[in-house]
Amino acid sequence: MGFIYLAGANLLLTTVASVLCVCFAPTAAGPGIPEIKAYLNGVDTPNMFGATTMIVKIIGSIGAVSAGLDLGKEGPLVHIGSCIASLLGQGGPDNHRIKWRWLRYFNNDRDRRDLITCGAASGVCAAFRAPVGGVLFALEEVATWWRSALLWRTFFSTAIVVMVLRTFIEICNAGGCGLFGKGGLIMFDVSTVTVTYHMMDIIPVVVIGIIGGVLGSLYNFFLHKILRLYNLINQKGKVHKLLLSLSVSLFTSACLYGLPFLVECTPCDSSLAESVCPTNEGSGNFKQFNCPDGHYNDLATLLLATNDDAVRNIFSTTTSAEYHPISLLIFFALYCILGLFTFGIAVPTGLFLPIILMGSAYGRMLGIAMKSYTNIDQGLFAVLGAASLMAGSMRMTVSLCVIFLELTNNLLLLPITMIVLLIAKTVGDSFNPSIYEIILHLKGLPFLDAHPEPWMRNLTVGELADAKLPVVTLRGIETVERIVEVLRNTTHNGFPVIDDGVVPPVGLAVGATEVHGLILRAHLVHVLKKKWFQREKRRTEEWEVREKFTWVELAEREGKIEEVAVTSEEMEMYVDLHPLTNTTPYTVMESMSVAKAMVLFRQLGLRHLLIVPKYEAAGVS
Amino acid sequence: MGFIYLAGANLLLTTVASVLCVCFAPTAAGPGIPEIKAYLNGVDTPNMFGATTMIVKIIGSIGAVSAGLDLGKEGPLVHIGSCIASLLGQGGPDNHRIKWRWLRYFNNDRDRRDLITCGAASGVCAAFRAPVGGVLFALEEVATWWRSALLWRTFFSTAIVVMVLRTFIEICNAGGCGLFGKGGLIMFDVSTVTVTYHMMDIIPVVVIGIIGGVLGSLYNFFLHKILRLYNLINQKGKVHKLLLSLSVSLFTSACLYGLPFLVECTPCDSSLAESVCPTNEGSGNFKQFNCPDGHYNDLATLLLATNDDAVRNIFSTTTSAEYHPISLLIFFALYCILGLFTFGIAVPTGLFLPIILMGSAYGRMLGIAMKSYTNIDQGLFAVLGAASLMAGSMRMTVSLCVIFLELTNNLLLLPITMIVLLIAKTVGDSFNPSIYEIILHLKGLPFLDAHPEPWMRNLTVGELADAKLPVVTLRGIETVERIVEVLRNTTHNGFPVIDDGVVPPVGLAVGATEVHGLILRAHLVHVLKKKWFQREKRRTEEWEVREKFTWVELAEREGKIEEVAVTSEEMEMYVDLHPLTNTTPYTVMESMSVAKAMVLFRQLGLRHLLIVPKYEAAGVS
Repeated sequence: MGFIYLAGANLLLTTVASVLCVCFAPTAAGPGIPEIKAYLNGVDTPNMFGATTMIVKIIGSIGAVSAGLDLGKEGPLVHIGSCIASLLGQGGPDNHRIKWRWLRYFNNDRDRRDLITCGAASGVCAAFRAPVGGVLFALEEVATWWRSALLWRTFFSTAIVVMVLRTFIEICNAGGCGLFGKGGLIMFDVSTVTVTYHMMDIIPVVVIGIIGGVLGSLYNFFLHKILRLYNLINQKGKVHKLLLSLSVSLFTSACLYGLPFLVECTPCDSSLAESVCPTNEGSGNFKQFNCPDGHYNDLATLLLATNDDAVRNIFSTTTSAEYHPISLLIFFALYCILGLFTFGIAVPTGLFLPIILMGSAYGRMLGIAMKSYTNIDQGLFAVLGAASLMAGSMRMTVSLCVIFLELTNNLLLLPITMIVLLIAKTVGDSFNPSIYEIILHLKGLPFLDAHPEPWMRNLTVGELADAKLPVVTLRGIETVERIVEVLRNTTHNGFPVIDDGVVPPVGLAVGATEVHGLILRAHLVHVLKKKWFQREKRRTEEWEVREKFTWVELAEREGKIEEVAVTSEEMEMYVDLHPLTNTTPYTVMESMSVAKAMVLFRQLGLRHLLIVPKYEAAGVS
Repeated sequence: MGFIYLAGANLLLTTVASVLCVCFAPTAAGPGIPEIKAYLNGVDTPNMFGATTMIVKIIGSIGAVSAGLDLGKEGPLVHIGSCIASLLGQGGPDNHRIKWRWLRYFNNDRDRRDLITCGAASGVCAAFRAPVGGVLFALEEVATWWRSALLWRTFFSTAIVVMVLRTFIEICNAGGCGLFGKGGLIMFDVSTVTVTYHMMDIIPVVVIGIIGGVLGSLYNFFLHKILRLYNLINQKGKVHKLLLSLSVSLFTSACLYGLPFLVECTPCDSSLAESVCPTNEGSGNFKQFNCPDGHYNDLATLLLATNDDAVRNIFSTTTSAEYHPISLLIFFALYCILGLFTFGIAVPTGLFLPIILMGSAYGRMLGIAMKSYTNIDQGLFAVLGAASLMAGSMRMTVSLCVIFLELTNNLLLLPITMIVLLIAKTVGDSFNPSIYEIILHLKGLPFLDAHPEPWMRNLTVGELADAKLPVVTLRGIETVERIVEVLRNTTHNGFPVIDDGVVPPVGLAVGATEVHGLILRAHLVHVLKKKWFQREKRRTEEWEVREKFTWVELAEREGKIEEVAVTSEEMEMYVDLHPLTNTTPYTVMESMSVAKAMVLFRQLGLRHLLIVPKYEAAGVS
């Protein structure tokens, strides 16, 4: 009967989350962090930061977390933060934008990127109550371009988040929030135990790091396989997606309910206060479950609690005898399986908490195994295990270090956390790329790395350009027909503008051509929409352009060629492209290696790069 | 008698520090951080990272700190860290380098920059025992170019530093280090007091931030004035420099000894243990000085202690009645004066500790003034005051936040520290630039900011190049005479190489010239040194070059034209510059704005940028 209630409630919540994700916003499924990373690298995923996505993500995440699935709310919160930032920056959802004047200042790529970075940082801050960790996560993992200004902007956002959090905590501590009444700014406080360690403790620390790195990269490997399998299933249609989610939910419920029956009850430690053990409600550390009075079921303590409480219970210090190794092993194995199979389903999923749960179980097991050798508390072993698995899978260092510091409030643990993280990252890096890179690759999102590949050194940009689609050029004064044709038949977003028949300087033959610059597709569409045509082939004056176009309009990057209607009479007319051309695009010579051009492209955050022939670049000043 | 001993010892120590700095290594004076910042930005100060500088800095810093001067060891430690990194990277001092093969891999600008960044991070880590703070300081304040790889490299260095620190602390806790026996990884621990604050406490926090920002920018303003005055004095010669240091030392000793006599003795708080109050030795919180038994002199507690102990005493929590406002006011005024006049003298000086001392005194005074209004502990007020003055003067945010977190080990203080830092930085930024920028400017070190100045938008690089010194070009096959002449008469480090009379492609007149690329001064000197001349004007084969030059030699950037002797017969011969030319330098068109070119220059960390005329950049692929 209990099982039917549990499974039924979980199935219902999963259904809500999954239906929303499948039907209304497929982009809301998954953590969203890889897409944000790709966006900040220059690749926009459609419908990623819309209002629908945000609402589905919020409700879906609540549903999925409450359904007891093995997933976290951290990734979704990062995505929600970015959505909020993006929506605030553009003044509301796409079709109901507020048109305030000052909002226009945010209407450019750089500020949108900055806002989304701040949103991501705020998300991490809200998820872990870790303001500095949030800033560092945004900088180390999410952002592609760093600037000092970005640093203190993200810092400012997380400061605001933490103030709001503090206010809510204060209101809740007064007792107005029911279940949320407890807890302070530190989620998994382990500061009560004094860390004492010595030179020889370096060995268990190194062991944790190495095993964590291996486990993390194994996790990445298997997750890759399973996500590929899921991709095949999900391609079959919406019903398959939904069924997949529901079967995972059912399996989770069955395991959570059934497994605690396998372990034996443990009598309560008499040195603890009577009221502490055992409990059956709320967030207690010792769950009675099926045991007689005065006994507790240690696996139920871990499984029949919210994920946050499970972490808190497994991190709990000075309780070295609480968990049997068998229970921890069952817990670890279960969460490995659940973590692998839950991540790919069509609900908002976060990676952090499943990995923390897995890692803490493994760390605590290791702590029990090494009990005779070291006197580091088993709760701290769990913390270190979680850190090592995170670093082994996600390959972050500084940000994880600060997040763990802010989660656990134990500064004395910092040196060993650093060593564990570095070892786990190094070990993991020698096997496979980080989990986010794997997901990016699976989603088919191109990502421009900071370092050029070795083959790029042996190829010139000229050779690369020859192998690719031909570049389409426009003349300075072009017919409408040609512009429409070019826009309809290509998907390029920028076109070089060439003037021919200019009077050349000494040394050049008559008839040489000149690069005037680069014109954007969006501006060409603007020209067609505004019908800025002229009958004769002449260059326009500056005031004519000023009259017709404002900078606010030109900053708008939307508009599609399909929406433009041009009559056949207008097709014969001319457009002067000169005033709308960017006359100084960045250029490279055709003999430059792809590696150097790529560094230029990525460091400056370019979208277009002109390749000019070497022979004509003749004089030098 | 006591005064003569104190002043004599202090004068002696100052003399040692100052003589070393004045006679052996003038670059060792001051904090060294601005020069490191400039180096990482691309401007090398001569003799900055040499072995002499390092030794003088170590001994000088020990002397200056022991002399009781109002300066810190933090800046010097950062410089020492960078020196060690630089020396390790190049295999020892300039004239006794180890020539190991693998050391050659570090022999390039990028790795040298990375090493120096790691050294700076390790310095901060060693100074404050703040590993994460060190990483962030290096990234936020010191480094110009950030990369993910740099992040975890600095993190790795600070992890090693913290391990070494831990080991020493463990050895010392066993009692083998005399005075250094005490203290753990956290320098100014205030975690004993539980922080409780409410919505209304936001007002004192904002007040601290605003006043801190104003005071910080005032400090910057006056320091600028005094450093200009000192520059005038120091220009007069070595004796003047020495006398200046000695008079500051004498004044400091007089104040430290004399001022405690001005205040009244305070009876010890009977609620404290008998052994705590009063003491006269070691690092106690209550100094007896001239008082009867059972009484202590609160100003002597602050003045007659090492600077570290003074900070610890003024940060001490739950001792709200310990300091009289009058004593704090005297302390604050004294350290304002000392801080301003000590910084510019010719000894290794650090900025952090003087500012922390000033700030904590001001914070504690504010705490006393607001006692009736808030229940935040006065020790925490001192911490916040120190943070606000640091942010008001140095304008850092995230790194200061983490450094203060790691110094004080009070995570619950984090939200208000963040707000204080942000407010102080914002207020300070509205008055004047940060202290490091002021020092950079005073030292005449050019610094390339991330943001272009507004005037740069209205100027093209072509116009700028016309206004500057003419560029000297070389031909692809050049006479030795011309190369020697060019190297002797110019100070340029790179020369464009032009080929004339090439067979041009269609569309260009015969006789057009072609840019072959850019050759470095160092490579020209190599050619002259190796006498790689030929009698006839011909292009060389690849094997001829391979035979003569190895890549290790070409990576060496040293060698002066003055060391090269060329006979008059050789002067007539030719050199083929083609094989040693970088054929794909980064280029910009002459019509590009200086702002865009500067972004390119700085983002890619370039040293040379070719400007090509627009007309000839004709075709586009």
